[in-house]
Amino acid sequence: MSMTISGTNENPQKDAANKSTKGGLEGVVAATTAISKVEGTAGRLIYRGYNIHDLTRTTSFEEVANLLWFGHLPNKEELLDLKVRLLADRTMPDAILRILSDLPATTEPMDALRTATSAWGAMSIKGKPAIEQAIAVTARFPVFLAAFHRMRSGLQPLESHPELGHAANYLYLLTGKIPEEQHVKALDAYLVLLADHGMNASTFTARVVASTESDIVSSVVAAIGALKGPLHGGAPSKVQDMLKSIGAIENAENWLRNALARGERLMGFGHRVYKTEDPRAEELRDLAHLADPQEFILARHVEELALALLKERKPDQRLNTNVEFYSAVLLASVGLPGDLFTPTFAVSRVVGWTAHILEQVSNNRLIRPEADYTGPIQAHFVPLNER
Amino acid sequence: MSMTISGTNENPQKDAANKSTKGGLEGVVAATTAISKVEGTAGRLIYRGYNIHDLTRTTSFEEVANLLWFGHLPNKEELLDLKVRLLADRTMPDAILRILSDLPATTEPMDALRTATSAWGAMSIKGKPAIEQAIAVTARFPVFLAAFHRMRSGLQPLESHPELGHAANYLYLLTGKIPEEQHVKALDAYLVLLADHGMNASTFTARVVASTESDIVSSVVAAIGALKGPLHGGAPSKVQDMLKSIGAIENAENWLRNALARGERLMGFGHRVYKTEDPRAEELRDLAHLADPQEFILARHVEELALALLKERKPDQRLNTNVEFYSAVLLASVGLPGDLFTPTFAVSRVVGWTAHILEQVSNNRLIRPEADYTGPIQAHFVPLNER
Repeated sequence: MSMTISGTNENPQKDAANKSTKGGLEGVVAATTAISKVEGTAGRLIYRGYNIHDLTRTTSFEEVANLLWFGHLPNKEELLDLKVRLLADRTMPDAILRILSDLPATTEPMDALRTATSAWGAMSIKGKPAIEQAIAVTARFPVFLAAFHRMRSGLQPLESHPELGHAANYLYLLTGKIPEEQHVKALDAYLVLLADHGMNASTFTARVVASTESDIVSSVVAAIGALKGPLHGGAPSKVQDMLKSIGAIENAENWLRNALARGERLMGFGHRVYKTEDPRAEELRDLAHLADPQEFILARHVEELALALLKERKPDQRLNTNVEFYSAVLLASVGLPGDLFTPTFAVSRVVGWTAHILEQVSNNRLIRPEADYTGPIQAHFVPLNER
Repeated sequence: MSMTISGTNENPQKDAANKSTKGGLEGVVAATTAISKVEGTAGRLIYRGYNIHDLTRTTSFEEVANLLWFGHLPNKEELLDLKVRLLADRTMPDAILRILSDLPATTEPMDALRTATSAWGAMSIKGKPAIEQAIAVTARFPVFLAAFHRMRSGLQPLESHPELGHAANYLYLLTGKIPEEQHVKALDAYLVLLADHGMNASTFTARVVASTESDIVSSVVAAIGALKGPLHGGAPSKVQDMLKSIGAIENAENWLRNALARGERLMGFGHRVYKTEDPRAEELRDLAHLADPQEFILARHVEELALALLKERKPDQRLNTNVEFYSAVLLASVGLPGDLFTPTFAVSRVVGWTAHILEQVSNNRLIRPEADYTGPIQAHFVPLNER
């Protein structure tokens, strides 16, 4: 029986299985970028020259958005300016509210976000990608998601709170309550950590669409669709499902051993690029502890056991905790339901997507690879009445 | 003054300007495929082994959809089966009609199609990409587009006509009239010709999204956004604008010489992949003649003059008529307004997109290239109150 490992945003199991095919573009440089640098062997992530460890908990999501979009950390005046612009863009057009209310309550929140963003772009965005558009779409992601979440729960959508920053206002829009300080801190740091990550599949999608000289919303909508996939951003709620199913520390070893014996995937381990621990996982572990010290105990125990069991079974593979494991723990601890984990990833990553779109169009070249044709060549065409 | 040439779906001018950058993935094999083969030097396009010249006007759009999806040309029974399935899927959910009616009349039809498709997928599509979903989304493109077009024109959307095939029903849904036979023939052949084209930017986008294990509608919505870009499918209406502006044969030479002298682009010439005439352009020329022999005269005159003038100015470049030139002439001749040209391209290409999505997921590997980081490395992080 083969053991499989996953719950990763970039699945090493599939990588191994398909090494002989030409898909995947692994190791192929698709673009130059000055936005972020992922060093897989060193386990380092850099935003515009700054190590992610220097930015986490020292900078807010808004400061990092300024860094990724404009290339530098803002001074107080610049930060105030950006915050004011984001605040002004937190509006919900009536037509978008009607569209979100027309979607069934069972709609996947990523599909609701994709649809609301597409409709909003259809009504509001004209012309070439521009920084004002990047700010406008980033400001609206929490507004769209929270409105959908409240309506599917039978509640009225809320107006944004003008005194709350991006992370705090998102939680406020979901619950109607001023969120606890440690939840805001943890979520704000999460949004900093997930905001960009080199040429990941959704960012690459956004750049391919932008390279046709399409509009910024077409690119962002495409990226939402890519992030939804379980091999990219779509799986963190499965980590939470696993932790819930384990339930208590004393069940963990049996549960994990049984899952592995059945050939099931352990969610939250392994990454295509990182050969050592993902630097975001390290930060998220601390943040998950900050957000809810009690919930953290089981997660940490399961993580350590899983790593030990995986090493026992696959001593030659370097499998480390990936970004999804503690993302799930953190997002659950700040009160988010599992199906908002991936949309909340999008709330952060939209900054990276739009920064990459603006970079792509600033020195554009159509991204248009080739394919190897492996099909037949037919000697004769046979018309319908002879088939 | 530099002369520029474009109106192409894959812009050779930009290619030349950016050859030194690493973007573009030119010559990089991103996937193996058994769906279509583009031979740029020979000027040949093959669908599942059949030369496009053998298929045009001998096979209907439905037959070619069967070929691209299932790998073979259908016999009469299989064709009937597919037609029945497409017919059954021509429905318009009330919620989608409300969403389309909420979009302002000035909305770009590609944005309306992107939004309606996203909303429909949010409500209707669950699970992994499947052939029934490919048929369902293909059947609905004309329904969504025609409903939007009629509502923006102050008219009631129509029910599909059960006795009309895909091409004829699309024209019927737009106008409410049984279309002329030569218009149906021309449009049906257009839909055959544009249904697939190797690893073009929108198909590649669809495959990247599918490679994350996202759903088929997320992939198709992403592809719509890519097709919208003027460097891919978004420019054919500009050919029509040019022909309208020229107006009559006697104005053509002056108009073209003046445009070139001003450094403007001549729309409809040049393609990144084809070094000889695009085989689709050859077919579309004949079809445009079929659709409206009178309108054809000016278009043909402008084409010949433009090719001669381009050769005079750039004797070393092989610039040929591309797919957009006679697409525009043909689609105008069958009665479509300019801003429905690109959406009608999507009505055809959605078959290729969905065939590629199904092929991608049948032997998947996450498409995740790399980027070269060209930004700075910061020696020190400076906290906000010291900036």
